[in-house]
Amino acid sequence: MDDQHEDKAKEHVEDSLEQVMLLIARQKLVESLVHKQDMPRHELVETLVHKQNLAELTHKLDEMHPADVAYVLEALPLEDRLLVWDLVKAERDGEILLEVSDAVRETLIEAMNNRELVAAAASLDTDEIADLAPDLPKDVVQELMKSLDHAKRLQVESSLSYDEDSVGALMDYDFVTIRCDVTLETGLRYLRMLGDLPPQTDKLFVVERDGRLLGTLPLKRLLVHDPEAHVAAVMSDEPVTFHPSDEASDAAQAFERYDLVTAPVVDAKERLVGRLTVDVVLDYIRAESESDLLQAAGLREEEDLFTTVWKAAKNRWLWLGINLVTALIASRVVGLFEGSIEKLAALAALMPIVAGMGGNSGNQTSTLVVRGFALGLINKDNSKRLLAKELGISVLNGAVWGSIMGVVAYLLYRDAPLGGVTAMALGAVMAAAMMLNLIVAALAGYFAPAVIDRFGRDPAFGSAVLTTFITDSMGFFIFLGLATVFLL
Amino acid sequence: MDDQHEDKAKEHVEDSLEQVMLLIARQKLVESLVHKQDMPRHELVETLVHKQNLAELTHKLDEMHPADVAYVLEALPLEDRLLVWDLVKAERDGEILLEVSDAVRETLIEAMNNRELVAAAASLDTDEIADLAPDLPKDVVQELMKSLDHAKRLQVESSLSYDEDSVGALMDYDFVTIRCDVTLETGLRYLRMLGDLPPQTDKLFVVERDGRLLGTLPLKRLLVHDPEAHVAAVMSDEPVTFHPSDEASDAAQAFERYDLVTAPVVDAKERLVGRLTVDVVLDYIRAESESDLLQAAGLREEEDLFTTVWKAAKNRWLWLGINLVTALIASRVVGLFEGSIEKLAALAALMPIVAGMGGNSGNQTSTLVVRGFALGLINKDNSKRLLAKELGISVLNGAVWGSIMGVVAYLLYRDAPLGGVTAMALGAVMAAAMMLNLIVAALAGYFAPAVIDRFGRDPAFGSAVLTTFITDSMGFFIFLGLATVFLL
Repeated sequence: MDDQHEDKAKEHVEDSLEQVMLLIARQKLVESLVHKQDMPRHELVETLVHKQNLAELTHKLDEMHPADVAYVLEALPLEDRLLVWDLVKAERDGEILLEVSDAVRETLIEAMNNRELVAAAASLDTDEIADLAPDLPKDVVQELMKSLDHAKRLQVESSLSYDEDSVGALMDYDFVTIRCDVTLETGLRYLRMLGDLPPQTDKLFVVERDGRLLGTLPLKRLLVHDPEAHVAAVMSDEPVTFHPSDEASDAAQAFERYDLVTAPVVDAKERLVGRLTVDVVLDYIRAESESDLLQAAGLREEEDLFTTVWKAAKNRWLWLGINLVTALIASRVVGLFEGSIEKLAALAALMPIVAGMGGNSGNQTSTLVVRGFALGLINKDNSKRLLAKELGISVLNGAVWGSIMGVVAYLLYRDAPLGGVTAMALGAVMAAAMMLNLIVAALAGYFAPAVIDRFGRDPAFGSAVLTTFITDSMGFFIFLGLATVFLL
Repeated sequence: MDDQHEDKAKEHVEDSLEQVMLLIARQKLVESLVHKQDMPRHELVETLVHKQNLAELTHKLDEMHPADVAYVLEALPLEDRLLVWDLVKAERDGEILLEVSDAVRETLIEAMNNRELVAAAASLDTDEIADLAPDLPKDVVQELMKSLDHAKRLQVESSLSYDEDSVGALMDYDFVTIRCDVTLETGLRYLRMLGDLPPQTDKLFVVERDGRLLGTLPLKRLLVHDPEAHVAAVMSDEPVTFHPSDEASDAAQAFERYDLVTAPVVDAKERLVGRLTVDVVLDYIRAESESDLLQAAGLREEEDLFTTVWKAAKNRWLWLGINLVTALIASRVVGLFEGSIEKLAALAALMPIVAGMGGNSGNQTSTLVVRGFALGLINKDNSKRLLAKELGISVLNGAVWGSIMGVVAYLLYRDAPLGGVTAMALGAVMAAAMMLNLIVAALAGYFAPAVIDRFGRDPAFGSAVLTTFITDSMGFFIFLGLATVFLL
């Protein structure tokens, strides 16, 4: 929606949502009324009001930016979503499917027949087709590939061949190349001849006849330098480039670090094979941070807000299952001390505090360590200092919060019958357990990510569970153990 | 580092870190050796090896991109960090200070005297000075402002006047304007005269004599259209624009949605006041997602990995304090049932499972709801459906996990002496408590963010604590309550 005041655009998109919902509601009202007079459906569809209503809704959608239509679709409950989806112009289906979240895309694709799907996908660039392909039915993809010319089919196939978190999966094939031996004047004439440049273009790629990348010619330089100058003299001859196999996250960091808008992608022989653009990088970064937040809560994949109960539940079971197991083990630790608890039930009331504080403190450490790994800030030379610092903090916190809880426990049970045990002694055990468990927490928060990383898994996912598991179990064990030894 | 293969650049930056650390280590070795022969420090500094070493280190740093130096500084323990910081060329201090994280910047600024700070800041653009100012000592800022000419001082002051999460705080003043009544040819000549364009420039801003924004002229169009054409005929006359007071997060969403590289910022009278660029938006999005992850763990601000124990501890206390209070309240709930626990200690072993599963399930719901709020996907029309779905899931999960835990509890205590209570009954209570607490979890996970949002706070921060607090307390209450009523 280039021609829109964003501020308006933003209100606009939420207004649009309101309006669309209103029209849908009106629509349903009409249908229900008509239904009461049980008029046959085909006549209903004939009724003027019905027609006007749909026309209005269709018009509304036509004037919206694909990304805004996508936003509305995501905010609509399934039934209404499909109603709207039917009214969207077929030739816009492709770009909108690209904009919606994976979960919502699934629901839209389910509602389309193969012919529609092929048509929608065919309207896209090859790199976009590759993005969509994994979500399409096999036979649709086959039909689609048949409909493409050889060159395009190769592009789609190569895009599909790359890991989804690699540069190859994010790059497009939409770039303008130029020879190094021509003048800028020639370049300018060439561009006028082209009549348009691909989106995001901020530089041309300078290539040899054999396709080898020699450098890049930023449009800036093309504009400000003497038209008589040769490209070779003006180009930047050591641009930031990527390989299709580079990790997308590394590329994203390079885009941030070096403020890139576009960058060439080259193969092992330095031949130009594609282009990476900042808008794709932006979407990737956003998607990554989204999934980090969702995974931290154990949502394996982003969920359509209005998906079916069944689908959503399955999405959450792995996590709940893992946590049930860890909780069970922790519970068995408590089980070992049921004798002590029978004698002194106060222990049962206090033990969750020791475990809980350990969990919170441990996850503060693991969060920092996970982040340090992700940013490559931690290596063997500085890791010891980091551990030392975290242990130092845990000792300090142990002293502070241990003492506080010791006093609190004393005050709570000062006047309670503890079967011979003094509230003072109980407070002391509480304080000691708290201190020890916070040290355990620092160790767990530090080593959990390291170990998971060692096993080649993503620390961002497992660290929290593992840390909490350790601090819970050890928290119960230390507190109940000390109590058993010193109080009973 | 425009002239660098990123892949290399990436290795390069980690190699650089290794090399710098090596040189520092060697440096220390020399000093210690010399120290053993207790040679006076000034002679040491004279020693050749010492000199060579420093020269090598300095050279290494000089050839590194500011962002890469920043990366190395963040990965170095304080002492080494300051050693390196001393060797960085003074004229690069400014840009490097901009690149490092807030926490690390603090440590670097502490190590500089006012003169150095003023010099460093003076080398920056006005919008960058404004970014730095809040971290600088008051007197430095004053001196700095005096050193600026009137126009620049106004720019810095206006930048400082905006909320840090507003467009005004992110925009720069580094744009090229053009009149609408000139030809593209004239425009091209004008750009050649300028000799260079500001970074990220993808469009010129078309303004009236009174500074009102009429539209934008994408460089693309300037390049491909007939030079004889007038700007007015070629420009996009309704570009996406922002107001300084717009929220940065809304602007970021617009950049993502409409794939922008730069956008004009206008005041209430549509007069051009600044420019927003995608590299700044990228950094903003990254910083936001970072702080979301850190806040989720209760780290109030991003922490220098090697900060002092004391500073780090203070950063974490608020969170631990809040959690201590909530844990205490939950513990008092257990306290109510100490009588029951004395009779049946198995309850103490099983209750953490009920609470824990509720917490995990509740946080899955709250995470989705928080995200829905953030993306503006939830409104009064669809919120009921969302709640219904979450309740549906919790009932399903309650049935599934409740039954599982019921059976597990039965099996665990089948042969254990339960003082008259049958393991079957215990299992039944466990199952019922689990089901009820998962329903509580869905309600808590749904309403906690809503309530926090209502109070104008950021749901991303408080929702997890509040949800967990409710599921813990209610989990204990439901399970122990049912047990007391039906078992004892």
